Amino acid sequence: MSSSPPLRSLTIDNINQNVKRAHYAVRGELAIKSEEYRHKLTQDGPSTPPESPLPFSSIIPANIGNPQQLDQKPITFFREVLALLEYPALLDNEEALKSSFGYKQDAIDRARWLIKEVGSVGAYSQSAGAPGIRQSVANFIERRDGFPANRNDIYLCAGASSGVNTLLNIICATPETGVLVPIPQYPLYTATLEILNARCVPYYLKESHSWGTDIEIIKKAYDKAVSEGTDVRAIVIINPGNPTGASLDEDDVEDVIKFAAEKNLVIMADEVYQTNVFIGKFHPFKRALRQMQRREPGPYDNVELASLNSVSKGMVGECGHRAGYFELVGFDPEVQAQIYKFVSIMLCPPVIGQCLLELVVNPPKEGDPSFALYDEEYNGIKNGLRERAYALYDAFKHMEGVEIGKPQGSMYLFPTIHLSPRAIEAAKKADRAPDVFYCLRLLDTTGICVVPGSGFGQEPGTLHVRTTFLPPGTDWISRWIDFHRDFMNEYR
Amino acid sequence: MSSSPPLRSLTIDNINQNVKRAHYAVRGELAIKSEEYRHKLTQDGPSTPPESPLPFSSIIPANIGNPQQLDQKPITFFREVLALLEYPALLDNEEALKSSFGYKQDAIDRARWLIKEVGSVGAYSQSAGAPGIRQSVANFIERRDGFPANRNDIYLCAGASSGVNTLLNIICATPETGVLVPIPQYPLYTATLEILNARCVPYYLKESHSWGTDIEIIKKAYDKAVSEGTDVRAIVIINPGNPTGASLDEDDVEDVIKFAAEKNLVIMADEVYQTNVFIGKFHPFKRALRQMQRREPGPYDNVELASLNSVSKGMVGECGHRAGYFELVGFDPEVQAQIYKFVSIMLCPPVIGQCLLELVVNPPKEGDPSFALYDEEYNGIKNGLRERAYALYDAFKHMEGVEIGKPQGSMYLFPTIHLSPRAIEAAKKADRAPDVFYCLRLLDTTGICVVPGSGFGQEPGTLHVRTTFLPPGTDWISRWIDFHRDFMNEYR
Repeated sequence: MSSSPPLRSLTIDNINQNVKRAHYAVRGELAIKSEEYRHKLTQDGPSTPPESPLPFSSIIPANIGNPQQLDQKPITFFREVLALLEYPALLDNEEALKSSFGYKQDAIDRARWLIKEVGSVGAYSQSAGAPGIRQSVANFIERRDGFPANRNDIYLCAGASSGVNTLLNIICATPETGVLVPIPQYPLYTATLEILNARCVPYYLKESHSWGTDIEIIKKAYDKAVSEGTDVRAIVIINPGNPTGASLDEDDVEDVIKFAAEKNLVIMADEVYQTNVFIGKFHPFKRALRQMQRREPGPYDNVELASLNSVSKGMVGECGHRAGYFELVGFDPEVQAQIYKFVSIMLCPPVIGQCLLELVVNPPKEGDPSFALYDEEYNGIKNGLRERAYALYDAFKHMEGVEIGKPQGSMYLFPTIHLSPRAIEAAKKADRAPDVFYCLRLLDTTGICVVPGSGFGQEPGTLHVRTTFLPPGTDWISRWIDFHRDFMNEYR
Repeated sequence: MSSSPPLRSLTIDNINQNVKRAHYAVRGELAIKSEEYRHKLTQDGPSTPPESPLPFSSIIPANIGNPQQLDQKPITFFREVLALLEYPALLDNEEALKSSFGYKQDAIDRARWLIKEVGSVGAYSQSAGAPGIRQSVANFIERRDGFPANRNDIYLCAGASSGVNTLLNIICATPETGVLVPIPQYPLYTATLEILNARCVPYYLKESHSWGTDIEIIKKAYDKAVSEGTDVRAIVIINPGNPTGASLDEDDVEDVIKFAAEKNLVIMADEVYQTNVFIGKFHPFKRALRQMQRREPGPYDNVELASLNSVSKGMVGECGHRAGYFELVGFDPEVQAQIYKFVSIMLCPPVIGQCLLELVVNPPKEGDPSFALYDEEYNGIKNGLRERAYALYDAFKHMEGVEIGKPQGSMYLFPTIHLSPRAIEAAKKADRAPDVFYCLRLLDTTGICVVPGSGFGQEPGTLHVRTTFLPPGTDWISRWIDFHRDFMNEYR
C-alpha cells in the first residue's frame, strides 16, 4: 500500500447518478439558508434585534406544511391516548388521570383497546400495520364513501410519502416506464421517479380553471409520451392540490377514472388534504369509482386505484409522527403479495403513529365524554386555517403584479407573480431563476421562507411562489407586502 | 371502449422485476403461516386447547428479534419521558406525576429539555434529525470511543434498516456495482441490492472460527468479483452477527479496515447489537479506525465508514418505534449533501423515535434519581437474555445431529442441523429446501416459528436454523426437543 492516502470510494461523480439528478426543492437551498438564519438568530439571541445583523427578528417557515412547528396545538384526545400507550403504567391509576389531568373515560378505554390490539408500541407490528387498526381505517372509508372497504387492502405506512415510494417502486419496471404527474406537483413524485430512473410524463393543470385537471391536456400528454416510446402505467392526481390549493369537482374525478380505464392506468390518488376543503366538497376517487362501477358494470371493473391519506395534514397536523395509509382497489393479488414483501423489508411503520392514525380515523363521537373538546379544537383549527387563507389571499390580491384565485383547499396558496424585465435581468446576473431570485430576496429581507414555483414545475414563461397560510398573525403578511412593494419599485 | 373489463395495468410479470426477485425470508412463508395459526388460535379461543384442531396452544415467534412482542417490558425511564412528550399538559402538574405515578425529577427535566429541542413531536424535524438529539448521539459516540464525533455527520433514521436503504441507494450506481455481504447475513442487504439491481458479492463467515470474518476468504470473494467485471464499492460487516451471534475480536476489525483502505471500499458497519455481547467485548469500527489513523497517519486517512445503530436491539428492544442512526466518517462533503437530499424526500424520521434514541444514548447516570430503577431493569434484561441464550444452547448441545458454538452476542443462535438422507428426500417431495421443510414441520407440530438458514444464505451442503432466544420460559424448548427427537426418528 502506498503511504499517501488513497482516494475516496464515493465521489459526487460515481455515486448513484439518479439520486444526484433528483430535485427536491421543499427542503432545498432556501430551506437550508433559512435554517442558517434561524441558527444565527438563536445564537445572537432573538431578544436583541437592534444588535442583530439580520434585518428581521424571526424566521417565518411558510415553505412547508408543518402546522405544529408554528402555533397549532395537537388535538387533546389524540395526545392523551398516545401518552397512555407510551407509558401504560399510567393506566394503573385512573382516578389520578381523571382528577389531576382531566382524562375522560373514553380516552382511557381507547388506550386499553389499542394496547390489546398492538401489544406494546415498542413491538414490531405486522408489516402492513396492526390488523385492528387497518380495520378501523376500513370502517372510516366505508363511512366516508358508503361502499365496503377490506382491511386486507389497507397498508399503513410512515406518512403518505413512504406509501408513494412503495407504489412507485412496484410500478417502475424499466427506464421506459412513465407516470403521468400533474404540473405543478408536490416534488416527491418527480424526485422518486428520478431516483427510480423512470419517466415523469408531465401534464399541466389549468390555472384559468382554478388549477383543475383538463382531460384533453392529459390525453395530449399521454399520446405524446406513447409516441416517444414511453410505457405509461399510472396517473398521479393530487386532490385537493399541492401546491395549487385546487379542489376537483366530481366530473373531473370521473373523467380521470374513465381515462385510466381506457388506457389501463393505475390511479394514484394523493388525497392527504381530503379534509382541508374550503369551497365545495371533497370527492374521493374510491367512491367515484364504485359509483361508476355500479352505474355501468363492465368497463371500470378492473380499474386499479391506490388512494393515500396521512395524519400529517387535515386538522391533525401530526407530521412528526410519520403515519398514513394507502388503500388498494382492483389490484392483482399477486401484485399485492409483492407490495407486502416490499414493505416487509422495512419491517413495519412506526407503531405509535399507527395508533395515532386509528384515533384520527375514529375520533370521539357525539355523546362521548371527549367529544365536546375534540369538536371545539377541530373546528377551531379548521376556522383558523380558513381565516388565514383568506387574509393572505386578500393581501396577494392587492399586491402589484400578483394574480391569485380564491383559496379552495389544502394548506397552500400558489399565486402567479409577474416580474419586470429588470428583475428578470437581475436574477440572471445572480445566476438564479427569476422566481428563486424573488424568494431568496424575500427570505433575506423579511425572514419569510417560501418555495419558488420552479420547485413544483410551472408552465414556461410563468412564475409562482408556494406559501402555506399556517403562520399565525398578520405581521408577517405586512412584512411581505412591504417587501413586495420595495422589490417592484427597485426593478421598475 | 369495449364493454368487457380491460386488463389490469399491473401484473406479476410487468411490475418491477427487481422487487419480484428480492427475497426476504424473515417475514416470508413461515411468518405468514404462523400468523394464520395465531389467528386461528385466537378465533377458537386460546383457553380451549382440547377443541383446537392445532396440536399446540400458542405460537412461539422465535423468528424475529422483537423483544416486546414477548414478555420484555420497556425500560420505565424511557417510557415515562415519552408519555410527557406525547402529552406535555401532564407537565402542568408535576406534583401529581410524582405522587400518583412515581415520576422522578430527572424524567420531568429531560422531557422539558426534549420539548425545547424538538418543539412538538408532531412537527417535522430537520431531515437528518433534530440537532440537539444528533449532538447527544455524538456525545455518546465520543464517550464510547474516546475520539471526537461531529453531530453533522450523524443521520437519524427510522430504524437501522432505513439507514441501510439510504446508504445502498447512494452507493449502487450501476448494475455492475457490487457490495461485499457476509453469508450468512441479515437479508435486508441482499433484498435491497436486488431491488437496486446491484450485485451482492458474498463472502462466507467461518463457522469453525465462531462465525468470524476471515480476511483471506474476503479477498478471494473480492478478486473473483472484480475478475467478473464487478465494481466492488463497499463491504458490509454485521457485528455482533445476525444471524450468527458472532462477536468479532479487534484483529478481525482491523483486518477489515486495512482491506477496505487498500481496495478503496466503504465500510458499512451494522453495529445494532453492540450492547448484546456475552463473550469478550464489542469493538466499534469507528474507534478501531481512529486508532489506526493515529498509529499510522496516511493510509487510513480517507477510509469511509458508515456505522449503524438502533433502538430496536440492545436491552432497549423498542422495535416498534423505528429509530436509529448512522454516523459517517471520511465521506466527501458533496456525497453527504446528496445523502441529505435523499433523506429529505421522506421529510424526517419519526420524532418521538428520535427522542427515544436520545434517551437510549443518554440514560440516567449514577446519582440521578431514576438511575437505580434504570440500572436494575437494564441488568435484569441483560442477565435474562444471557440465561435464555445458554438454556437454549444447552438444549441444542444435547439434540441429535445439531452442532452449535457458545453464544457470543446478538439475539440469535444459528445451529447447524444434520438431516438424514430420508429427511432430505421427504423435503424434496414436498418441494421445499431441507431446512425449510424442517422449520415448517417444527411450526406445524409445535407452534415454534424460526427462520431456515437458507433465508440468510449458508455454505452449500450445510443446513441451519436461526432462532432468537427471546421467548420466555423453558416449555417451548421442551416442545422443540420432543419435536426434534420425533423428527429424527421418523426419517432415520
